[in-house]
Amino acid sequence: MWMRTIDWSDEKGCITIIDQTALPSKLVLLDIDHVNVLHEAILKLRVRGAPALGAAGGFGVALLARSIRANDFKDYIKKLTEGAESLKKVRPTAVNLSWGVDRVLAAALTGKDRAEVESTALREAKALADEDVAQCRAIGEHGAKLLESSDTVMTHCNAGRLACVDWGTALGVIRSAVEQGKDIKVISCETRPLNQGSRITCFELMDDRIPVTLITDSMAGHFMRAGKIQKVIVGADRIVEDAVFNKIGTYSHSVLAKAHGIPFYVAAPLSTFDFTRREKDVIIEERDPEELRRWNATQIAPAGVPVYNPAFDATPMQNVTAIITEQGILEPPISFARLKKSSSQKPYIRDRTKGVQDGI
Amino acid sequence: MWMRTIDWSDEKGCITIIDQTALPSKLVLLDIDHVNVLHEAILKLRVRGAPALGAAGGFGVALLARSIRANDFKDYIKKLTEGAESLKKVRPTAVNLSWGVDRVLAAALTGKDRAEVESTALREAKALADEDVAQCRAIGEHGAKLLESSDTVMTHCNAGRLACVDWGTALGVIRSAVEQGKDIKVISCETRPLNQGSRITCFELMDDRIPVTLITDSMAGHFMRAGKIQKVIVGADRIVEDAVFNKIGTYSHSVLAKAHGIPFYVAAPLSTFDFTRREKDVIIEERDPEELRRWNATQIAPAGVPVYNPAFDATPMQNVTAIITEQGILEPPISFARLKKSSSQKPYIRDRTKGVQDGI
Repeated sequence: MWMRTIDWSDEKGCITIIDQTALPSKLVLLDIDHVNVLHEAILKLRVRGAPALGAAGGFGVALLARSIRANDFKDYIKKLTEGAESLKKVRPTAVNLSWGVDRVLAAALTGKDRAEVESTALREAKALADEDVAQCRAIGEHGAKLLESSDTVMTHCNAGRLACVDWGTALGVIRSAVEQGKDIKVISCETRPLNQGSRITCFELMDDRIPVTLITDSMAGHFMRAGKIQKVIVGADRIVEDAVFNKIGTYSHSVLAKAHGIPFYVAAPLSTFDFTRREKDVIIEERDPEELRRWNATQIAPAGVPVYNPAFDATPMQNVTAIITEQGILEPPISFARLKKSSSQKPYIRDRTKGVQDGI
Repeated sequence: MWMRTIDWSDEKGCITIIDQTALPSKLVLLDIDHVNVLHEAILKLRVRGAPALGAAGGFGVALLARSIRANDFKDYIKKLTEGAESLKKVRPTAVNLSWGVDRVLAAALTGKDRAEVESTALREAKALADEDVAQCRAIGEHGAKLLESSDTVMTHCNAGRLACVDWGTALGVIRSAVEQGKDIKVISCETRPLNQGSRITCFELMDDRIPVTLITDSMAGHFMRAGKIQKVIVGADRIVEDAVFNKIGTYSHSVLAKAHGIPFYVAAPLSTFDFTRREKDVIIEERDPEELRRWNATQIAPAGVPVYNPAFDATPMQNVTAIITEQGILEPPISFARLKKSSSQKPYIRDRTKGVQDGI
């Protein structure tokens, strides 16, 4: 069933989302008509993925603007601003959430009365979501040129429509190629330890009837050697001049792709580019060791076994064949100085202190 | 707690095993005093691993010899032979089980009366188990020379004492180095989809107080690039002249090791060498797709998603730095013709029809 991951229902006057915690067992849609319900949905990862969280922040401000009870306009603006701050704190490391909140709040605050604040906020939130879709569509159009009919494309984690408002980045490229009539098959790596590949990527590709086969992360080399993989496409959490940060496992895939002469593509909007840092300046988030020790109630490793659990790794630019952006395809080495000057979109600088973070 | 994975208790007159299905949560010891209990233990993987299953077959015949009720000696031999055949059929693809049964049965049948059959069977089963330990010890002694103090060694799956009667092959090399006073740390890959690395390797190393850290299989490249891994040692399910067959994921690790200039060692007894085939002649077993779709009650991928689930992969000999055997260290290229001639132990030829199989 095709719908946006997060959207605004004019009919119901509320946010609608696909509840990602129910995947892959069930497709559950949620109406979110109060900001407290949105808080819970963000906290419980019912909505996740950096671009989707940006839209959640934007629509959250629009929802707030409609539901606040206030004595007068001054009180209303005070409560709207406070509510927006609270929303940002639900996941303080998810920088897109803050970015979406800030952008829509800034627009809303130009309103001269409550009605104008409400309508401006909703218009801006919808624009933000539409831009996200347009950006993914543009990435898809550019990237589809790199895929040939009968290609099998391997991907890692979920850089799909369920991480965005719609269409997706890495999976957006595959969708655009399929839309153009190309015969594309996908191999999805399960993506340990949180299995976004098996849970989410497999779900959305099956839902779209794009042929997908699931493998463990460790099988990538075996199937590359067997000639079963023609291209690799992944998303990115942050791109610096000398490296691409993405879900742990991406770097291993890049080495394997290079060893087998397979093109390794990264699909990501220009907003992912960080013009201020290099690889050595970025700290990689270390996640909860329990993610490797338990699967729900099942213990899969001894209690207390020491664990390394970096959320991301860095793929040096030499292993990247090309980066697919909404403005075109960039082949390394990429001059970030020139790119920054020519880029029409001002990249937002993500979390300045804590390194790479994402929406899981 | 140090004990053999499988052993004979003279005091109780029965087989004792570590119940591996209780790991890593609990260490449960089982007394097996009837062959039906042994059938169940083999079927439910309470005892697993190729060498351990060999010993299970051997001790199983010794147990049968003691417990059969027969009218006369002829009837006794008939029932012993039938019971041995039934035992082999519990896991027909586990070739070591058949090998252990056949070896001990052949010895037992030289007995002239029941008492002699019983005592010969038990002596031969104990000898088989002792030889397995001696072989692992010899592999350990040879391999330990390759490890230096302060090395961190990465391993995959479980080629440890819990797959053997004791000591282990890949982990035996690490144990021998530690016994020599070397300071060795281990990084254990969890080994999807059945997590033998997280469940079994981590358990046995923690039990022996050898420092171990658990990672997902996909993190290998990241930690190699970070300089945290000095050596890789894995076991093998079958070694042919041009490749090493081992648990799926081994090949990816070998490519990553090569790309990072890290030695990649295989530790395995000469009985693992197959002198009759090359890589192209070996069919790799495809396992149940549900292993990637569910973890007990938890669905981790959409129902019915297509899955590739090869149990093993092939690592070409060019990626192998050396093979550590009980007779010494072999560096590729290895002439199998010469090795066959010089080898004092006659390798048993594993499953002739179905390709590589193991005890999970």
